[in-house]
Amino acid sequence: VRSDTISRLAAEIHDARRHARTRLVLGHGGGSFPHTPAREYSIQRGILSTDSYRGIVLVQDAAAKLNRIVVSAMLDVGENAMSVQPSGAAISENSKIVHWDLSVIKKLLEYDLIPVVYGDVGIDLRQGCCILSTEEIFRYLAMGLPVERVLIGSNVDGLYDKDPSVFSDAKQIPSITAENASRVCSLIGKSPGIDVTGGMRSKIGTLLDIVRLKNEIRCEVIDIREPNALKRALCSQEVKGTTVRAG
Amino acid sequence: VRSDTISRLAAEIHDARRHARTRLVLGHGGGSFPHTPAREYSIQRGILSTDSYRGIVLVQDAAAKLNRIVVSAMLDVGENAMSVQPSGAAISENSKIVHWDLSVIKKLLEYDLIPVVYGDVGIDLRQGCCILSTEEIFRYLAMGLPVERVLIGSNVDGLYDKDPSVFSDAKQIPSITAENASRVCSLIGKSPGIDVTGGMRSKIGTLLDIVRLKNEIRCEVIDIREPNALKRALCSQEVKGTTVRAG
Repeated sequence: VRSDTISRLAAEIHDARRHARTRLVLGHGGGSFPHTPAREYSIQRGILSTDSYRGIVLVQDAAAKLNRIVVSAMLDVGENAMSVQPSGAAISENSKIVHWDLSVIKKLLEYDLIPVVYGDVGIDLRQGCCILSTEEIFRYLAMGLPVERVLIGSNVDGLYDKDPSVFSDAKQIPSITAENASRVCSLIGKSPGIDVTGGMRSKIGTLLDIVRLKNEIRCEVIDIREPNALKRALCSQEVKGTTVRAG
Repeated sequence: VRSDTISRLAAEIHDARRHARTRLVLGHGGGSFPHTPAREYSIQRGILSTDSYRGIVLVQDAAAKLNRIVVSAMLDVGENAMSVQPSGAAISENSKIVHWDLSVIKKLLEYDLIPVVYGDVGIDLRQGCCILSTEEIFRYLAMGLPVERVLIGSNVDGLYDKDPSVFSDAKQIPSITAENASRVCSLIGKSPGIDVTGGMRSKIGTLLDIVRLKNEIRCEVIDIREPNALKRALCSQEVKGTTVRAG
């Protein structure tokens, strides 16, 4: 666990909310916590054998453990953050959430608490189980809540036409809209640290789904390794990254 | 945390399920974990001031921390246990759950996984927030699931007409039905280690609600400090305690 990074990001969120009191849903991926058992049991492919049941519960446990660390960091900086366990309430079909009662999340936002969701295992009506990526969770929340922005904090400052760690002439793509979406998507290779949720290609695909379904939403992928990038983005200041918009 | 006791009880559940493969929902109270912030912020009385919001998130965090310990113990003995966070999905009115989509819990039972619920904070439409006691959670689950038995593991072998730690002539009450319910309830004092969920009086009241609403359910309060009492009760063997039945 990179405790220093988690604490720094929690502090940036807290700082940002002192300046701009935006209501916020926080989501975090699982990193190595759930990805390790998820990969071992191929949970993203569904229930394949009786072993898969063990995989489901190990992924849930690992995801929830990391969530406790993130929520603790938020509580420590003085934010009123509360876990909302996706696997305890969401129902999916082919890894897409089709039902999730958002009453609790709506109430938490009304109270100005910060619901904290996370990449998790999911109950799936087609394949038995699935991986609920944070982006897929954001997609479902964006449909059911009055969302203005979706901010994806990453370890890259957006999208490149080639892998920037390999090609020195890789160019950053500052903006994706309906116009250049298909061309950009064909450029995106599988991201280096590929995870069970499909990496950057799948992330961008989900962000495009979001802006197609709700034109007014602006999505941004920013590099939150950069100190204060998250804080500045939350305060609507200019941050280098890739935006995804309807047009 | 009494890790030894938690591990022993997990092992008893595992042993019992090797003999009698009953489908099971496991619930645990919060003990000192959430009760400490719950009492400090009077969460059981609802949102009283802006401080209450801090109380809500501290109770959720504490309850979920203990839940991770319980689920880990279950996983360690080889049971496929999965957390289901009540505060993430249940909506209450005056501390009674009025809405909770049980689709995930039903699917987990269909898969023969063990959903693990727990005493938690709740979103309450009347008072803003509340404490969801494990008994209240069991009451709601008993209404929505095909439940046969509700087993309450306690640190006393059922109900006494007086506090047995004070009065040497205290008599154990082996059975409560509609016939003796009102007489028995008037006898029950507040239990010694009173908690924010109302102690034994409230527990028995909720069990009576359960058997009134679903006559076929049998509730039992047993002393699980006694080694193998939980295992034997799960295997439907005779265990000293108090049963609560419709008639």
